[in-house]
Amino acid sequence: LNAVAAADVAHFAGLGIEVEDAGSGQLGARYNVDMLGRYAGDASVAVFPASTAQVSQVLAYCNERRIGVVVQGGNTGVPGGAVARRGEVLLSLRAMSSVREVDPVAGVLVADAGCVLADLDAHVQQFGFIVPLDLASRARCMIGGNVSTNAGGLRYLRYGSMHGNVLGLEAVLPDGRILDALSTPKKDAAGYDVKQLFIGAEGSLGVVTAVAIALAPRPRATQLAVLGLRDFATVQRAFVQARHALGETLSAFEFWERRCGELVVEHMGHPSPLAAAHEYAVLVETRGAIERHDAEKMDAFLAALRADGLVAEAQVLRAPDAVAAAWRFRSDMAAAHARSGCMHVYDFSLPPRHQAALRDATRRHLAALGLYGAADSLVTDVTVFGHIGDDNIHLQIVAREFGGAIEDVVEPWLYEWVGGHGGSVAAEHGLGAHKAPFLRYAKSPVIIDTMKALKRLLDPRGIMGPARHICQA
Amino acid sequence: LNAVAAADVAHFAGLGIEVEDAGSGQLGARYNVDMLGRYAGDASVAVFPASTAQVSQVLAYCNERRIGVVVQGGNTGVPGGAVARRGEVLLSLRAMSSVREVDPVAGVLVADAGCVLADLDAHVQQFGFIVPLDLASRARCMIGGNVSTNAGGLRYLRYGSMHGNVLGLEAVLPDGRILDALSTPKKDAAGYDVKQLFIGAEGSLGVVTAVAIALAPRPRATQLAVLGLRDFATVQRAFVQARHALGETLSAFEFWERRCGELVVEHMGHPSPLAAAHEYAVLVETRGAIERHDAEKMDAFLAALRADGLVAEAQVLRAPDAVAAAWRFRSDMAAAHARSGCMHVYDFSLPPRHQAALRDATRRHLAALGLYGAADSLVTDVTVFGHIGDDNIHLQIVAREFGGAIEDVVEPWLYEWVGGHGGSVAAEHGLGAHKAPFLRYAKSPVIIDTMKALKRLLDPRGIMGPARHICQA
Repeated sequence: LNAVAAADVAHFAGLGIEVEDAGSGQLGARYNVDMLGRYAGDASVAVFPASTAQVSQVLAYCNERRIGVVVQGGNTGVPGGAVARRGEVLLSLRAMSSVREVDPVAGVLVADAGCVLADLDAHVQQFGFIVPLDLASRARCMIGGNVSTNAGGLRYLRYGSMHGNVLGLEAVLPDGRILDALSTPKKDAAGYDVKQLFIGAEGSLGVVTAVAIALAPRPRATQLAVLGLRDFATVQRAFVQARHALGETLSAFEFWERRCGELVVEHMGHPSPLAAAHEYAVLVETRGAIERHDAEKMDAFLAALRADGLVAEAQVLRAPDAVAAAWRFRSDMAAAHARSGCMHVYDFSLPPRHQAALRDATRRHLAALGLYGAADSLVTDVTVFGHIGDDNIHLQIVAREFGGAIEDVVEPWLYEWVGGHGGSVAAEHGLGAHKAPFLRYAKSPVIIDTMKALKRLLDPRGIMGPARHICQA
Repeated sequence: LNAVAAADVAHFAGLGIEVEDAGSGQLGARYNVDMLGRYAGDASVAVFPASTAQVSQVLAYCNERRIGVVVQGGNTGVPGGAVARRGEVLLSLRAMSSVREVDPVAGVLVADAGCVLADLDAHVQQFGFIVPLDLASRARCMIGGNVSTNAGGLRYLRYGSMHGNVLGLEAVLPDGRILDALSTPKKDAAGYDVKQLFIGAEGSLGVVTAVAIALAPRPRATQLAVLGLRDFATVQRAFVQARHALGETLSAFEFWERRCGELVVEHMGHPSPLAAAHEYAVLVETRGAIERHDAEKMDAFLAALRADGLVAEAQVLRAPDAVAAAWRFRSDMAAAHARSGCMHVYDFSLPPRHQAALRDATRRHLAALGLYGAADSLVTDVTVFGHIGDDNIHLQIVAREFGGAIEDVVEPWLYEWVGGHGGSVAAEHGLGAHKAPFLRYAKSPVIIDTMKALKRLLDPRGIMGPARHICQA
């Protein structure tokens, strides 16, 4: 790939495209470092196309000249996929932020890729809908990035994946051709579902410029309870009961271990929603059409848990402020870890029967390596929290420094452990800047070969980042 | 492509694979004609591999010798994609029908492609789940075919598409390589979601041999009402009200026009669930966790419809027999048309704002061509029924003969009309034997070019049917 030259920057500016270069203080602070501060970017120029046609012009030009491109939305990604690592042109979708259409009968939203998730959610509420996706980074992340990373998040349990909820999208291929797959009907079995390739491709097959999303009816009532539970097996038993007793209203079943809660209290200053300390906490939320029905269901569920001796403490929160505070407590969990040290976060899926063992095995492995367990160990905390019901576990290794032994020694072991237990090495955060080489622990050679063939088919010159993309798998 | 020779048949038999050839009376009756009798197949041999390894052996052999292969599941497809049209080897999944695993905590089913949908649904009920897919052909269709055709069906409104519900699959590529993507965790953002390509590919990129599906909790209560409504605008208004009033419990909102009901009464002998005749009928179903809550919601919804003057007749059915009879009435609608004459069925998606115009425009077009409206016209009926809420309309043109003017003159006009109104030319039935050339009315050239490139990438020798596959688009 060729480096970006001054003539290239002048070319983009000449097309009327907004450009920032390394001379600007903004570039480094806003676009050249990831949200968690782990990945330093090296882009010397960022471009801000304001239309699909401008995205097409940028890509056609870069493809012709073999200049690398990294796509960035809200820059809230965890594994570093949205920062340039080889001096690529940074293509930000920030200037494409219009809602194109809301169809209130069909319940469909069509929006530019640069729309912020929380803004879209607020916008569609007036029509009686919600966006079927919610993330802790809702106030900054953008819908194009959500789709491109196949974001899972907090509403997955109720509304499912982007592969089901994205009805259509518009993408610009690396050679500049515009792929208009922005159809809105829900059922479509006409040929291969080409748009699916861009869901989760992290900008490596082209740039998603707009999306059509199936909205969900806005629930009229919310019930929330925070439970204190004694062990992980109990968390899982409580989930199975919740799924059958709360049925169609169950909208979230989040868990965290004791230490995660302590870190939030300590570093974010939020009070715990539980009175006592418990090995595990669970946040159960239902969202439904009729308040009284949902309250009855929640009460009956909690009564059954108590009758079975499964719950040590239950706080039912009904005041909107208390509900918001409980969600803030959960949402700020990653941030609390990041403030407590150098957070290495791992985003795995695992079948439920193997979830309990992950953290314990990691602690043992780290201790055996002399990295954990003593007062001056490199690693200060190993914790898990996540989304029960969608098999998604976040493992945090908080250390005194980034990388080093954790990247070199622990990560290969960790990815192999997860792959060997039927899990995915990237559940909802994507491969980003460095996970491609670990794909082989979780995906068969034929799958990886097919991924590589798809990359070569759609991006034959290999201009689309991230740097260590699928062909390094 | 090469024709199948006696030596090829002997080779398959020598591998221990069950084979039927043209000498058998079964072949013609069971495998060489589609369910609706429109497409006559010309396979001279059918193979019945009993394992993924045997499927791999068949494909590797056929790929090497450039022998065409058409994949068949339950042979319940509508557009003829599962019958051989160029003398291909017919590969039936009938002998692969084992349930591989049910995980009752995760709520995941892993099953061979040849499992019958209704059998799977019955199997998982003991664990408190249902399969999130239901079709009129449930007793014969197979899960591999459901996935391969991206079947939509009656539960789409509640549970969404196969693209969201299929967690993993195993497929044999045309060259015989086995693609093991049979993972079960719900969230997975590790690289490109290769399995999505096989969902809706109708066997043209390889053979789906097993699938992992996310199950839904089994509802404990069912409410069903059949409504008589005066026009299609009222059907849509009632749907919007239902979606918001019944919220998370709404599980079906099916409609049919008066003539569809008459045909079911006349040709299937089922009594109408409505006392009077209405221009449109709607079947509203809710499925939830607590009977009393759901009954209250349904009653409140119907009271609001009556208060707004939107409903001419409402029959609330609570007895299991009456519920089953109403569903049978709806499910047998296509069969009733087929018995009344030569049914040409069209399976479109359309944005709601254009749905009302489709049938009327079709009638006008047929009448202008002299094909409809007189006592001796070629076309005897033009009707619509379908699934409100997932934008899926089935249009039936019943004629005195198959093909002819309808195929040559009406279909191109029809597909162009649908494409021009933002619809899909195949909503839930696939492209099958003859729709590929009409793709261009609904998909942009860049999408179609990408589809063709994917076909050439995964099936470079073009052995996988159906005959008029994507490269004829």
